[in-house]
Amino acid sequence: MSLLVTGTVGIDSVITPHGRVTDVLGGSATYFSMAAALFTRVRLVAVVGDDFPAAFRDLLGSADIDLAGLETRAGAKTFRWKGEYSQDMNERETLELQLNVVNDTPPKVPGAFADSDVVFLANTHPGLQRELLKQVKSPRLTVCDTMDCWIENEPAELRRTLGVVDGIVLNDGEARLLTKQMNLVAAGEAILSMGPRFVVIKKGEHGAMLVTADSVSVIPAFATKDVCDPTGAGDSFAGGMLGYLDRCEVHDTAALRRALVRGTVAASFTIEGFSLDRLRRVTAGDVDARVRDLVAMVRIE
Amino acid sequence: MSLLVTGTVGIDSVITPHGRVTDVLGGSATYFSMAAALFTRVRLVAVVGDDFPAAFRDLLGSADIDLAGLETRAGAKTFRWKGEYSQDMNERETLELQLNVVNDTPPKVPGAFADSDVVFLANTHPGLQRELLKQVKSPRLTVCDTMDCWIENEPAELRRTLGVVDGIVLNDGEARLLTKQMNLVAAGEAILSMGPRFVVIKKGEHGAMLVTADSVSVIPAFATKDVCDPTGAGDSFAGGMLGYLDRCEVHDTAALRRALVRGTVAASFTIEGFSLDRLRRVTAGDVDARVRDLVAMVRIE
Repeated sequence: MSLLVTGTVGIDSVITPHGRVTDVLGGSATYFSMAAALFTRVRLVAVVGDDFPAAFRDLLGSADIDLAGLETRAGAKTFRWKGEYSQDMNERETLELQLNVVNDTPPKVPGAFADSDVVFLANTHPGLQRELLKQVKSPRLTVCDTMDCWIENEPAELRRTLGVVDGIVLNDGEARLLTKQMNLVAAGEAILSMGPRFVVIKKGEHGAMLVTADSVSVIPAFATKDVCDPTGAGDSFAGGMLGYLDRCEVHDTAALRRALVRGTVAASFTIEGFSLDRLRRVTAGDVDARVRDLVAMVRIE
Repeated sequence: MSLLVTGTVGIDSVITPHGRVTDVLGGSATYFSMAAALFTRVRLVAVVGDDFPAAFRDLLGSADIDLAGLETRAGAKTFRWKGEYSQDMNERETLELQLNVVNDTPPKVPGAFADSDVVFLANTHPGLQRELLKQVKSPRLTVCDTMDCWIENEPAELRRTLGVVDGIVLNDGEARLLTKQMNLVAAGEAILSMGPRFVVIKKGEHGAMLVTADSVSVIPAFATKDVCDPTGAGDSFAGGMLGYLDRCEVHDTAALRRALVRGTVAASFTIEGFSLDRLRRVTAGDVDARVRDLVAMVRIE
């Protein structure tokens, strides 16, 4: 049981209809790790600059996250993102993006992490995703994310990465862009033909779809009025999902479906506050209660 | 056990990425009735012109639909709509709309239909919806639909109608327009405060949400690649839902949820063909099989 995540740890500034925050903890690997740590011990691999606040490191360390792979690079600056959400929070605009240290030499997977069982490659250049994956000896489950810029600018590299992972988690717009298929079931099947044995398509407030060779599953999002800031919802979803799967003996469709539920629940907490404000306070009891609430919400008798 | 529907029976021409059809059977009450007839006997109240093809009347009559309330008005022309769907079929443009007979004196509810148990008032002027409802003596369940033009131009009339129905079925954009609430749970609750005891918000390919005073339920759409023409999906959803409820002793939240499943299934057949091409051929066995498939698709263990 060991879950490794590679991705971004950064500093965010966010504006939503519910308020604004400046210089808060963010990044794909951050949200993923905090969500996954609700279920299992997480090994975080990322690089930050020496401007990364000690309080943010402490926050990550206070969860069940091994920070041996969180490199602080002297003289470098941490990744920064500033964004603003639309009134309905279904769209967002990037106001500022500073790649900083993320644009330099990538982090290394520490030797002690080379025996990781489950690996999640958060969004980055697909070639780098494979480089990082090679540093893990024999993972039993590998999943990647991606985004529009790689789909459009590095299609060959992305295809190679899709050829070596077990699964991919991406959003509906990315799935359509990657496959030129408007219908999401068709898009999922087209991605399966590129290599992975499962595809998870995230649909934001509309939930997620799991496509395997012989099944299509749909999990609605947790319906709630308490949406404060959608930032990190997708990464929290992946974190809850993979954190749960790390504890599973087998990774069949039934396990994947249960994992999607945990991802949905993790994301539902993340969006209730800015940054990690809500997710960091979630207990195992909170998770269990919300899983029950979600089950009740979607149960068909 | 008797279900009355008032609405439009018309002649459609439709263009989708999968083809085009000209002068086919359409209209809200048509789709509603054909879907509801999968579950119960339907009493259809609508008016057409004397240009309405005998073959269309025969098609409706071949299902479990009582046509005693389908008035053919001499010298009048049938409602006509022509529309074209976008590539992803999530948007459509009305290319041509001829209200024709729908703009004249409304139909009457036949005396033999005055004892109807369940009434669905498909979209029309909210004042007319109440006029039609008054012609039914003591229905045990009344549900209406509405659309943006009444929300914007007849808000007071619509409020009065909302004050006398048990439930409303409307789409997400309409719910947001009616309540100025972007969040659908909040929108649903705001509509409850206007009178109905339940609100069903249709989200197209993303399914439907049921909001009552003490519950929120979410049913995803049936995930399928076989989407040919979305026309009538929402009316078929309402038809499947109310057709099922007409057979239920009680109309509590559990029954409403089961009804949403039947609505989802009915809509999933409608969109597999143009006009009634697929829905008209659906058997009780097809319905049962698809309910099982939908349950399997959304089951959380």
